[in-house]
Amino acid sequence: VLFYIGGNDSMDTVCKLDKYINEKGLDFQVIGIPKTIDNDLPVTHHSPGFKSAAKYLAVTVNEIARDSMVYNCESVTVVEVMGRDTGWLAASLGAAAPNDFFPVLGVPESPPVHLIYLPEVPFSFEQFISDIKQVQKQHKSVIAAVSEGIRFADGRYVGSSAQSGQTDIFGHSYLSGAGKVLERLIQREIGCKVRSIELNVMQRCSAHLQSVTDIVQSEAAGAYAVECALNGLSGIMVTLGRQFSYTDAANAANKIKYFPAEWINSQGNGITPEALKYF
Amino acid sequence: VLFYIGGNDSMDTVCKLDKYINEKGLDFQVIGIPKTIDNDLPVTHHSPGFKSAAKYLAVTVNEIARDSMVYNCESVTVVEVMGRDTGWLAASLGAAAPNDFFPVLGVPESPPVHLIYLPEVPFSFEQFISDIKQVQKQHKSVIAAVSEGIRFADGRYVGSSAQSGQTDIFGHSYLSGAGKVLERLIQREIGCKVRSIELNVMQRCSAHLQSVTDIVQSEAAGAYAVECALNGLSGIMVTLGRQFSYTDAANAANKIKYFPAEWINSQGNGITPEALKYF
Repeated sequence: VLFYIGGNDSMDTVCKLDKYINEKGLDFQVIGIPKTIDNDLPVTHHSPGFKSAAKYLAVTVNEIARDSMVYNCESVTVVEVMGRDTGWLAASLGAAAPNDFFPVLGVPESPPVHLIYLPEVPFSFEQFISDIKQVQKQHKSVIAAVSEGIRFADGRYVGSSAQSGQTDIFGHSYLSGAGKVLERLIQREIGCKVRSIELNVMQRCSAHLQSVTDIVQSEAAGAYAVECALNGLSGIMVTLGRQFSYTDAANAANKIKYFPAEWINSQGNGITPEALKYF
Repeated sequence: VLFYIGGNDSMDTVCKLDKYINEKGLDFQVIGIPKTIDNDLPVTHHSPGFKSAAKYLAVTVNEIARDSMVYNCESVTVVEVMGRDTGWLAASLGAAAPNDFFPVLGVPESPPVHLIYLPEVPFSFEQFISDIKQVQKQHKSVIAAVSEGIRFADGRYVGSSAQSGQTDIFGHSYLSGAGKVLERLIQREIGCKVRSIELNVMQRCSAHLQSVTDIVQSEAAGAYAVECALNGLSGIMVTLGRQFSYTDAANAANKIKYFPAEWINSQGNGITPEALKYF
């Protein structure tokens, strides 16, 4: 039995291998087990890896918020979060609770992230600046979380809009992340202190902040996959929920589960109570 | 009594206030307590804050190394570390031990960081590329740590060398960090997979990874400062070492303790056993 652990691409591999096994009549099974910090695998309620990445984000953004809050000036921090196609990780920051361990005297504790932008919602520079100005009426230091994959209504990535014909000192066209682009936009349109932070691979590799539930469920998902194998199954993907189950791997292969439109607020810059319940 | 906690600038404020108190004959004392992740305050053996930042770096770079190690291709990761004038933090990565908690089968565990570049050593693109190629003979994935303040022999910052006349989509001249510049250099000169990671404010605000020794010593330094105050002292800075002591704040005001030249290896890309002993 081959147990193949991964996301949408990996489940496509499971399908192809299973097809090959059947065609050749081989005595072999292949079973997919979900694992992606993007949380974008269909059918399964969630994917192992996501909770750990979300935990890293919640802890880190709280600390970043504290770091910016101590200065006595207006500031905006743009935190760029992984998610090229879907916004699950950025959206999870809507569930980040204020950090009560290190209270700052006189500063009312509020959730660290004020604005959230996902690839699922067409992005607009004008709306973004207007949103920030709105939050600035109440908060001296504003934190906005953006998925790396946010794009304009015409489909162009915000993160590649800095490319237009520009080259660096080596003559290469320059690729800038969404956070950097928005940092410069705020510099021009608002002019306050601004910083963009790319959380980079730390989101997926910060093992010291792994979610315990994630570890326990990952192991249990593996055990369930072995049961499936012993029952002779092949070409399936294990699914997680209140109970383990499985689905035809074809239902997940190269398919994307987007962040539900009804879980995004009407302004397109945050999540609904329903989403909060999911997280 | 005013207890003023901070780095070189703050100690300058301590001096100025003490001078003012003396001139006016006021019944007031001012006492400086060191705190800087840069570890660049003179006289004191080290400064509170540094150990916590170094701990964050060691943990995180180990995880980044693991993240890059799992791919079966040549890669270079450039980690940009805080330190505009001095390289203490980047140098501390020379003491980062391999992470034995999550061993990868068949991969011999080695210290995660192969090359270290400090502001104290004139930087050369040619030497950097030659160093990387040298390490690539032994390691599939190479990790280089650079201080944000590395500069060429003529004093120009590597991190600003991308500015030359270029503007972004908003017409602003573009400021690029040292890591990004080196990422593009490697892309051009070596052509393998390359990524630069800016550890940004997380280095100074990751409270969840605070060093316990750091916390204990900070509190003790505060208590010692109170003793100094009760003894009638003013215009001084507390110093840390095997024992607490104090020095005239003027000895630290606007002065910088550089990473010692004799603790840098002869190739200028790592630290000596003596430095390791200090860390």
